[in-house]
Amino acid sequence: LLHINDSRLLNTLDELSEIGATSQGGVTRLCLSDDEVEAKRYIIELMKRAGLEVHVDPVANVIGVLNSAAETKLVACGSHVDTVIDGGRYDGSYGVLAAIEALRSFKESEIKLGHPLAAIAFANEEGVRFPAMVGSKYATGLITLKDVFALRGTDGATFEEALTKSKLELESDSFLAKHIPGTYLELHIEQGPVLENEGKQIGIVENIVGTRQIEVGIHGSADHAGTTPMDARKDALLFASKIIQFVNKLSLELGKGSVGTIGFLEVTPNAPNVIPGEVRLIIDFRNSSANIIDLASSKLNEMVKDTANKDRVQISIRQRADLPPADMTDSIASLIQEITDDLGLTWRRMQSGAGHDAMIMRRIADTGMIFVPSKRGKSHSPMEETAGDDLIHGANVLANTLMKISK
Amino acid sequence: LLHINDSRLLNTLDELSEIGATSQGGVTRLCLSDDEVEAKRYIIELMKRAGLEVHVDPVANVIGVLNSAAETKLVACGSHVDTVIDGGRYDGSYGVLAAIEALRSFKESEIKLGHPLAAIAFANEEGVRFPAMVGSKYATGLITLKDVFALRGTDGATFEEALTKSKLELESDSFLAKHIPGTYLELHIEQGPVLENEGKQIGIVENIVGTRQIEVGIHGSADHAGTTPMDARKDALLFASKIIQFVNKLSLELGKGSVGTIGFLEVTPNAPNVIPGEVRLIIDFRNSSANIIDLASSKLNEMVKDTANKDRVQISIRQRADLPPADMTDSIASLIQEITDDLGLTWRRMQSGAGHDAMIMRRIADTGMIFVPSKRGKSHSPMEETAGDDLIHGANVLANTLMKISK
Repeated sequence: LLHINDSRLLNTLDELSEIGATSQGGVTRLCLSDDEVEAKRYIIELMKRAGLEVHVDPVANVIGVLNSAAETKLVACGSHVDTVIDGGRYDGSYGVLAAIEALRSFKESEIKLGHPLAAIAFANEEGVRFPAMVGSKYATGLITLKDVFALRGTDGATFEEALTKSKLELESDSFLAKHIPGTYLELHIEQGPVLENEGKQIGIVENIVGTRQIEVGIHGSADHAGTTPMDARKDALLFASKIIQFVNKLSLELGKGSVGTIGFLEVTPNAPNVIPGEVRLIIDFRNSSANIIDLASSKLNEMVKDTANKDRVQISIRQRADLPPADMTDSIASLIQEITDDLGLTWRRMQSGAGHDAMIMRRIADTGMIFVPSKRGKSHSPMEETAGDDLIHGANVLANTLMKISK
Repeated sequence: LLHINDSRLLNTLDELSEIGATSQGGVTRLCLSDDEVEAKRYIIELMKRAGLEVHVDPVANVIGVLNSAAETKLVACGSHVDTVIDGGRYDGSYGVLAAIEALRSFKESEIKLGHPLAAIAFANEEGVRFPAMVGSKYATGLITLKDVFALRGTDGATFEEALTKSKLELESDSFLAKHIPGTYLELHIEQGPVLENEGKQIGIVENIVGTRQIEVGIHGSADHAGTTPMDARKDALLFASKIIQFVNKLSLELGKGSVGTIGFLEVTPNAPNVIPGEVRLIIDFRNSSANIIDLASSKLNEMVKDTANKDRVQISIRQRADLPPADMTDSIASLIQEITDDLGLTWRRMQSGAGHDAMIMRRIADTGMIFVPSKRGKSHSPMEETAGDDLIHGANVLANTLMKISK
């Protein structure tokens, strides 16, 4: 069994977490922001130091290749280096750095490989600045280059404008379209409390829940807060409060691991003495069953249609993102389990409540995900934390699984 | 009876509304923003053209004085030129321009006056960038210069910093503290639908409602929207939705003209896939009775104390502003009514649901307010509108009332 270089992995995690570090102790690296571009440059340099052949494809997926001369199917692994606002230092970064470390260890140990291997940092996994998973969707042909370029970020700039501003040197062809991976592995922190609560070292993902994001615009009337009687108001925020409570109640009723969140809400004009004229909010529904997500969406539509008129507001609804649930590949999960046992680590099979590039890569490749514990289940927060030992265990499971597949 | 110069009044209203004009057809001039400072410079020039002696006091109240040699009590009138975000063109501006126009007409008609007269544009009437009514509070001694300077605006700058940036030439003494007005009149659009609905031309204000603004901070936990089960969440926005509905229900129950509004609400981190960790919101309660405002505040405190714990959030509450209700002076209201009759205009007595500098000036001077109709009751909105005839009627009521008092 191979053992990766522990201190080197932990050092690179420390170094990368300094790029975009926030005063809260977290990290903010929105896709193609100055800090995220700096993080990509760090990854490119690290791949070069590891002796990998580096490709930066037209949407700024960063790909480091080992044993590129082999004509067999590509064995890929990776994650992303973009983050949410004031997110944690492990989400995404850990999977990318462990992938590079695994390939670097193979090279240093002169492991004989039958396949080419790639460590990937996918572009814009988080759905903050742009809709989620742009990089893996492009790599798998789910979205064209033209459509990626036209995506408009929350700051108003298009993806193409952000790419130009980044000054990254992009290749004109899609490396992953030319070298379609036969396998994709992703190592990630759990981002939930299950492994910690059960005292398990490794999570083997069987299923990733689907996510649907629905953007709702509520159009009322921005009238004077002092002179407009209560019964004559068209208060967009009052209606928003009904949607917030409805989504919460609905998600509790649907059960079966259903979650529903309103994480984004913006009031216009947002002045203390003006009744809110406009509210824009985004609902995020998740479930392992596509049917339950459909049911949640239609119940929401129904509620809005039934009550908006009575509350004298106009509503516009559009689907912002829709990632169907994805089952991981059984044979890959069994292999991960076998190697985890060989390494003497404890494990459990589980589902992922968070979306990952793995759910996109599953469409073209045999895919598996490996989880390590998140302390207190914290993620998307500066309080995200995983013990050093757990980080090393996960990286060793990844490296040995890759090695076995690439034999 | 005196008649002001109609077209001159309407022209100055047009000119002033171009400063800070928005794409929506409204006006944005937050206190001491570049546009509000430009509006003040416009007012200063207009006062000079009208032959008034101009004073800009230490907090940037702009005061134009006629007949300053008279040693009798100052007769003052005015309003403000700052606005809410995307507000209307009449709110405040109309009262200031009609005041200048009245004094200009007196001068041109060589009316014999027994009192000095002042037209005033008070600083920061709207409570948007800084707490409301800073200028009139300073003029009446309710707040010291030191405390005004230390006020911090929503953009982070202090009032003193904003004054320095404005480059306005400020006097070192308070003109209105040295020349305390014996009377204060304010002409304003109604900002509500009552006059229009009843087909009355003039509103004579008997009472201005009190306003209390309460800022609530809700502190939950910014966890991952996909991996945190519904029953383990500390969702600050879900709790905010309960406050929004509570304030609405409470205001309806209290009745007696009670209104309660949440016009400002801010979510942190405000990302679609993160449970809201923090929400900051401002509640605005208004009533003509101080007791009912106290009751609303204590019911809110009770609700928050009773439920925050159960919902696993922490709450911080602070009072942001508190303007007690103010009765206008009977003798002034009677005089306004008499002059309105003399001019052959229809009127009704009424209360003001909006706060005005008149409620502050009432503490030191006999005070009256004159309202003109607002179309569809719209205000604090680009849709604010008053017919030209109504604007002229109001200005004539103001001018003739001033003339009678200043005889």
